[in-house]
Amino acid sequence: PGKLKAKVISTAKSIKQLGQNDPRRITHSLKVGLALTLVSLLYYARPIYDGFGESGMWAVLTVVVVFEFTVGGTLSKTLNRGFATFLAGALGLGADYFASLFGKDGEPIVLGILVFLLAAAATFSRFFPRIKARYDYGVMIFILTFSLVAVSGYRVNELVVLAHQRLSTIIMGGATCMLISIFVCPVWAGEDLHKAVSSNLEKLATYLEGFGGVYFQSSENDGNGIGKSYPQGYKSILNSKSSEESLANFARWEPGHGRFRLRHPWKHYLKIGALARQCAYQIEAINGCIVSDDHIQAADEFKGKIEGSCTRMSAECGKALKALATSMKTMTDPYSSANSHVENSKAAMKDLKFALKAATLENADLAAILPAATVGSILVEIVKCVEKISEAVQ
Amino acid sequence: PGKLKAKVISTAKSIKQLGQNDPRRITHSLKVGLALTLVSLLYYARPIYDGFGESGMWAVLTVVVVFEFTVGGTLSKTLNRGFATFLAGALGLGADYFASLFGKDGEPIVLGILVFLLAAAATFSRFFPRIKARYDYGVMIFILTFSLVAVSGYRVNELVVLAHQRLSTIIMGGATCMLISIFVCPVWAGEDLHKAVSSNLEKLATYLEGFGGVYFQSSENDGNGIGKSYPQGYKSILNSKSSEESLANFARWEPGHGRFRLRHPWKHYLKIGALARQCAYQIEAINGCIVSDDHIQAADEFKGKIEGSCTRMSAECGKALKALATSMKTMTDPYSSANSHVENSKAAMKDLKFALKAATLENADLAAILPAATVGSILVEIVKCVEKISEAVQ
Repeated sequence: PGKLKAKVISTAKSIKQLGQNDPRRITHSLKVGLALTLVSLLYYARPIYDGFGESGMWAVLTVVVVFEFTVGGTLSKTLNRGFATFLAGALGLGADYFASLFGKDGEPIVLGILVFLLAAAATFSRFFPRIKARYDYGVMIFILTFSLVAVSGYRVNELVVLAHQRLSTIIMGGATCMLISIFVCPVWAGEDLHKAVSSNLEKLATYLEGFGGVYFQSSENDGNGIGKSYPQGYKSILNSKSSEESLANFARWEPGHGRFRLRHPWKHYLKIGALARQCAYQIEAINGCIVSDDHIQAADEFKGKIEGSCTRMSAECGKALKALATSMKTMTDPYSSANSHVENSKAAMKDLKFALKAATLENADLAAILPAATVGSILVEIVKCVEKISEAVQ
Repeated sequence: PGKLKAKVISTAKSIKQLGQNDPRRITHSLKVGLALTLVSLLYYARPIYDGFGESGMWAVLTVVVVFEFTVGGTLSKTLNRGFATFLAGALGLGADYFASLFGKDGEPIVLGILVFLLAAAATFSRFFPRIKARYDYGVMIFILTFSLVAVSGYRVNELVVLAHQRLSTIIMGGATCMLISIFVCPVWAGEDLHKAVSSNLEKLATYLEGFGGVYFQSSENDGNGIGKSYPQGYKSILNSKSSEESLANFARWEPGHGRFRLRHPWKHYLKIGALARQCAYQIEAINGCIVSDDHIQAADEFKGKIEGSCTRMSAECGKALKALATSMKTMTDPYSSANSHVENSKAAMKDLKFALKAATLENADLAAILPAATVGSILVEIVKCVEKISEAVQ
C-alpha cells in the first residue's frame, strides 16, 4: 500500500507539472470537453432537430477527430475534412451511377475496381512530401468517404439526402470546433512559432554570454565539470526542426491575429530556425571541447592571451542574439542595436587573429594550446553564423 | 498548352521518382486498395451477412484509418482502436445506465457532465509524452466511442446488440488490415529502424574515409569549393531523431520477424542513433571549417606535418564505422574488426599529439595554422565518439 501511495503521489505530481509547464493544456482540455458536450447534447436531443437523424453521429465524430491544440491545426483539419467529404461524396455518387449502367451483375465488379484504383492512387499520393504535410488528413477522408458512398448500396436519390445530412452535420461539428478554438483562449500556431524561434535565439544568447567567463575562469579554479553544470538549454534546439515545420504548416491556415497579418512570411521563420540550428551545432562542438578533460592541460598562459578577445566575441554574439530576439518579440527593426554588437564581435575576431599572431610559442607546445585554440576557431564560425542570423531577421 | 504539357511531364517524373526511390510505396498503395476493396465488397454484399447491418460501414472506416505503411504502425493502431472501442463502449453503457437513474429530466444533464469530464481528462492525458507516443490514437477513439455510446439515446439492451455489431465489424476490418500488412510484402518498422541506423553509420563512414584525402590535397590544387562538392550525405542524420523514435515505437508492437526476436532491444538503436547524431554534429563543425575560405590561408607546411596522422585518424574512424555498420547488417559480433580500427585511430591520435609537439612554429604564425589545427582537434572528438559508438554496438 505504501508503494501504491507513492506511485499515486508521483503521478499526481507529474500531472500537476504538466499543467504548470503550459497552462494552455488545461484550457485546451476544457475546450474539447465543451465542444464535445455541446455537439453531443445536440445529437442527444435529435428528436427536436429531426432533420439530422442518425447522421448527428458525424458531428460528434468530427469534433473528436478535428479539434487540435492550435487554431491552425483545427482549421486545417476541418477544412481538409469538409472539402474532402464534399469532393469524395460527389465522386462517389458519380461512381455509383456509372456502375449501375453495367447491370446487377457488373455493378459490384465495376465498383470494386473503382474503389481499388482510387484507394491505391490516393494512398500513393500521400507519399508526396507536400501533400503529406498539408493534405494528409484530407486524402484519408477522401478515400473513406468515397468508398462509403460508392458501396453503400443505396439508390442515388436516397444518397443525396444522406450526403446532405452528413455534410451538414460535419459542417456543424466543424464550425463548433473552429468557433471555440478561435474565440475561447485561442492558441495560435503562428504565435507559437514566433515565440519558439525567438526563444531559441535567446537560448543561444544565454549560452554565449556566459560562455567566456565560465570557460576561461574554470581552469583557474579546478577546471573540471563546468561543461556539465553549464546551462544546456541550447540542446533542445538541435532537434527543433520537425516541430518548427509543423507549426509553420499550421500557421499558414490561420487568419490574421494579433500582430500577424494573414500572409505573414512563416517560411522565413524556418530559415531563421535553420540558422539557429546551425549555430547550435557549433556550440555542441564547443561543448564537446569543454566537457572533455583536455582543457585542463591547456596552457594557462596561452589561454590568458586569447581570453579577452574570445570572451568578447562570445559575449557580443550573445548580446547581438539577445537584441535580435527582443526585436523579434517586439517586432521592431533590430538594425541599430544588433548590428553594433555584430560589428563588435567581428572586431573581437580580428583582435583574436592579432593575439594569435603575437603569441610567441617558444615554450608552449602546440598540443597543449590546441583545445583553447579550437574553441577560438569555432567561435569565429559562430560569429559568422550570428551575422547570417542577423541578416535573416532584418 | 506547352506549359501544361511540361507540367504534366514533370509531375509524371516526380511520381516515377517517388516510386523508384522506394518501390515499397507502390506495394503499400496496392495493399491498401486490396484491403479496402475486400472490406467494401463485404459491406456491399451485406444482405448476405445481414447480421452486420449498417455497422458494416465501421469495417470500411477501420481499414482506411488503421492501415499504415509499416506492420508495427498498423498493429499499434488496430490494437489501440480495438481495445479503446471495447473499453469505452463498456464505460459508455455504464454511464448510460447511471444517467438513467436520474429520471427523464436529470439524464441529459448527468450525461453532459460525464461526457465533459471524460473528454477533458482524456484530452489532457494526451499531453503525457509516453501516452502521446504510444496510445494517442487509442485515447482519441476512446473519447469518440464513449460519447457516441453515452448520448446515443438507445436503450441499454439495444445498445448491447449495436455494440456487438460494431465491435465485430471493427475486428473484421482490423483483422483484414493486420493479415494483409503482415503477409503481403510486409514492411517491418523494426527492420527499417535497423537499416536506418546502420546506414547512418555508413554515411558517417563514407564522409570520414574520404575526408583526409580531400581536405589535405585540396589546398595543393586550388583549395576552394571542396566543401560544397564533397558528399553531404551525413546531413540527413542531423534531423533523424523523430523518425527513428517513431520507428522504434512501432517496432515495439511487431511480432518476431526475420532475424529479430519479439523483444528485440529497440531502445538500444535509439542510443546508437543518438551517438551517430553526436558524431554528425562534430562533422558539421568540421564541414564549417572546410567551407569557409580560411583553410586557403592555412600554412601548407603545418598541414603537411599533421596530414599523415589526421588522414589516418579519419580513415580509421571511417573503417571502424563501416565495420560496425556491416556487422550490424549481418548481425555478427563486430569485436575483432571494428576494435582494431578504433585502436588504430587512437594510435593515430597519439601520433597527432607528437606531431603537434614536434612542430616548431618559429616562422609560421598561429592564426594561419589554426583552421587546420581545429580540424585535427575535432577529429580527436570524433575518435572518442566513434569509440563510444563501437562500445554501444557491441
